Amino acid sequence: MLDVPQIAILETVLYGQDLKAIEKFYREHLGLEPFAVAEGRHVFYRLGGQMLLIFNPDATNVASGGASLPVPAHGASGSGHVCFRASALAIDQWREHLERGGVEIEADFSWPGGGRSIYFRDPAGNCLEFAEPRIWGMS
Amino acid sequence: MLDVPQIAILETVLYGQDLKAIEKFYREHLGLEPFAVAEGRHVFYRLGGQMLLIFNPDATNVASGGASLPVPAHGASGSGHVCFRASALAIDQWREHLERGGVEIEADFSWPGGGRSIYFRDPAGNCLEFAEPRIWGMS
Repeated sequence: MLDVPQIAILETVLYGQDLKAIEKFYREHLGLEPFAVAEGRHVFYRLGGQMLLIFNPDATNVASGGASLPVPAHGASGSGHVCFRASALAIDQWREHLERGGVEIEADFSWPGGGRSIYFRDPAGNCLEFAEPRIWGMS
Repeated sequence: MLDVPQIAILETVLYGQDLKAIEKFYREHLGLEPFAVAEGRHVFYRLGGQMLLIFNPDATNVASGGASLPVPAHGASGSGHVCFRASALAIDQWREHLERGGVEIEADFSWPGGGRSIYFRDPAGNCLEFAEPRIWGMS
């Protein structure tokens, strides 16, 4: 074993170029208000004890911040993926809420080991999911 | 306000094509043992109450699983980004541990509002970070 502390995630990241469309979608359909917005660069959300950061890769694929704040370049293209945890009841509520708002549910199924997932897309084409934590053996 | 439950993240995702190199790196340098491995498709890690999933986008950019398990296609290319939470002391320990293992620290600085971040790359070029949660006003 390494003599280093247990790892936990602080920031989960997605990418998208049209951040105004993303901000509108995450507010209207997921009920999320931004923690911080930098036009053309990022929209940040706080979800409990961690952050969901959505960056425009055109802005972050170059290193920024200068010598005192040398933030490394990063930025992906294509369809990213994030899954949110939800109870069985909450997944019912989310499906109804998303469909009422005109969001297409791309898939909705139960895993062989138990637990349900529903999938849909954000405006950048990222694959978003709500799933019961028991799909991973968690409560 | 939406009449829907509070959102929390269950799965954080990165992509990389050489999963054997990724599994070796995350084990040797981050001390992570896989929760599940599917050769050529994915390496999954459990980090406390959530999952870090690393997929080969060549395998996931096509929908899979058939009619009973219609998992949508997803998969990004380029440099993704994930940040792990760490105390000030743990960041010292991680920096020492990573450098001892030959991992280059790409950046190491304190944010204007307080809190330190260190950055390095995984074999797929993903930008990994350890940061104090106080950079987001969290304890």
